[in-house]
Amino acid sequence: MAAPALADVRAAQARLRGRLQPTPLLTCRSLDRLAGRRLLFKCELFQRTGSFKIRGALNAVGCLVEESERSGGGKPRAVVTHSSGNHGQALACAAQAEGVPAYIVVPRTAPQCKQSAIRAYGATLVPCEPNDKSRAETAARVVQETGGVMVHPNQDPVVMAGQGTIALELLEQAPEVNAVVVPVGGGGMIAGMAVAIKALRPDVKVFAAEPRNADDCYQSKVRGEMTPNLHPPDTIADAVKTSIGPNTWPIIRDLVDDVLTVSEEEIKQATRLVWERMKLLIEPTAGVGVAAVLSEQFQALPRDLGNICIVLCGGNVDLSSLTWLTALPGKGQ
Amino acid sequence: MAAPALADVRAAQARLRGRLQPTPLLTCRSLDRLAGRRLLFKCELFQRTGSFKIRGALNAVGCLVEESERSGGGKPRAVVTHSSGNHGQALACAAQAEGVPAYIVVPRTAPQCKQSAIRAYGATLVPCEPNDKSRAETAARVVQETGGVMVHPNQDPVVMAGQGTIALELLEQAPEVNAVVVPVGGGGMIAGMAVAIKALRPDVKVFAAEPRNADDCYQSKVRGEMTPNLHPPDTIADAVKTSIGPNTWPIIRDLVDDVLTVSEEEIKQATRLVWERMKLLIEPTAGVGVAAVLSEQFQALPRDLGNICIVLCGGNVDLSSLTWLTALPGKGQ
Repeated sequence: MAAPALADVRAAQARLRGRLQPTPLLTCRSLDRLAGRRLLFKCELFQRTGSFKIRGALNAVGCLVEESERSGGGKPRAVVTHSSGNHGQALACAAQAEGVPAYIVVPRTAPQCKQSAIRAYGATLVPCEPNDKSRAETAARVVQETGGVMVHPNQDPVVMAGQGTIALELLEQAPEVNAVVVPVGGGGMIAGMAVAIKALRPDVKVFAAEPRNADDCYQSKVRGEMTPNLHPPDTIADAVKTSIGPNTWPIIRDLVDDVLTVSEEEIKQATRLVWERMKLLIEPTAGVGVAAVLSEQFQALPRDLGNICIVLCGGNVDLSSLTWLTALPGKGQ
Repeated sequence: MAAPALADVRAAQARLRGRLQPTPLLTCRSLDRLAGRRLLFKCELFQRTGSFKIRGALNAVGCLVEESERSGGGKPRAVVTHSSGNHGQALACAAQAEGVPAYIVVPRTAPQCKQSAIRAYGATLVPCEPNDKSRAETAARVVQETGGVMVHPNQDPVVMAGQGTIALELLEQAPEVNAVVVPVGGGGMIAGMAVAIKALRPDVKVFAAEPRNADDCYQSKVRGEMTPNLHPPDTIADAVKTSIGPNTWPIIRDLVDDVLTVSEEEIKQATRLVWERMKLLIEPTAGVGVAAVLSEQFQALPRDLGNICIVLCGGNVDLSSLTWLTALPGKGQ
């Protein structure tokens, strides 16, 4: 399959049961007032490894383990991916939980804190040069050498199905929801969620939120064809610098109602608002969805969209700029 | 009354119903592993105004309004307190909600962000010199001039009863709890909680947590008599610099099982841990309880204290040291 179906998302939910806790849905009066609607914050920043990515990673590794066992071949030899960010950490954690070796290809220039987070889950780091070509070549070499399986951060339908479990949880927690707002990078989360939502509740709107500086999803929808970012985008929302891909694009094209773009200033303001008012340490990428809901474009949407769910996708913030924290000996995570 | 009874805490709970949401109880695997026990984090940082103080403030203002109405005198003329911190903000918010004027006496040297948070709730700021004498004199003068009622941050039994509602909520949310760990400054929160817990569940231990640099509660328990801090304490946990007082001391003496003290280093490490692992923007004062549970002293406690509730009392952190946040125009809260 290149696209997951509702059944795949349901299977993912069964697979993740007992491995992950449902994340809470929090509310905040003062943000409701600013938005003029009731906001429901889906707290994926509380998820294991600090982002929703563990859902897709655990589903992918779980599927591989089941397939290997069905074919009598024992455990998979290894899983491989390229990501210095949340997916790398999530795949390392998922592989460790299932007893499968993980190889994570990481640019030499990636921050030390991210590298050590991945290493802490027992994964092998494979350095590459900080460009797409070296990254892809290195990953391909590692797959060949280890006999491992590549788990793509967002184009793998099994990964998408895992992320889609956010939607199943949400519809159970808040059946009154009228719309969801989801930050989009590669599009794995919004694709998985849209598949589940449009199958179960076609009345619920699905909005993508994107930095204006990395607006390939918006451009793609406008032109009706996949239009990747031409250059590496410059945005504080580092987890959505990636462009949507060949597997997420058709789902986004057909099931996502609209794409909202926001400025860097709006992202920073929204992130600070959530820190100050909600006391939630979201990463700026999660601020993209909040900024979208506070934007003028969103204000103009019909008032009967009264209950809006924003996915706070992650909380992996580099705290090294806080003076009294950084003055401490030792490193945390 | 100088001390609240269980009935007062129950009355406070009834009074706060519909005005405040219960705060969630969150868990965290990696902190459980560090502590060697199951930890339940009572998220008072999500409370309105960013700390538990709104419970006591709303209960106090609510009581005053009820009394005025009973005596046919309309609304109370005003409420007054001295606090540049969480209680000042909470009383301003509670008074605004009840339509009562609030006068908050604040040292001239208090940070601008705290002053504007109080002003945002429509309260009148009354500046004083940054010492106890000027503070008390100014408050007394304001009470006289306005015909208002002084609401003490922690020695008022009605305030203590309000804070005690944390315990009622907790016992309902997690009846399996074996102990609570509560940061102590003036002692209003632990006194209110201890009254409720020891009346309903005398088997549940009540531990105070205190910075070693502000250990008046510990010293008082050791000596068996109230022993205030001699000098203004030097601690990052600014909300617990206050000493316990004549009304909270007897309750603490009789109902609190033990006092755990922690170093500044431990407080900072614990605060950072909660930021990094739980993505919760707690203020360092909330880190005091976490540090206590991670301390060697706590590790030595019997293993059958398996389920420990830590009250994350507040999240009002000054974010002005974060460079990209502070570079933004305008101020948040």
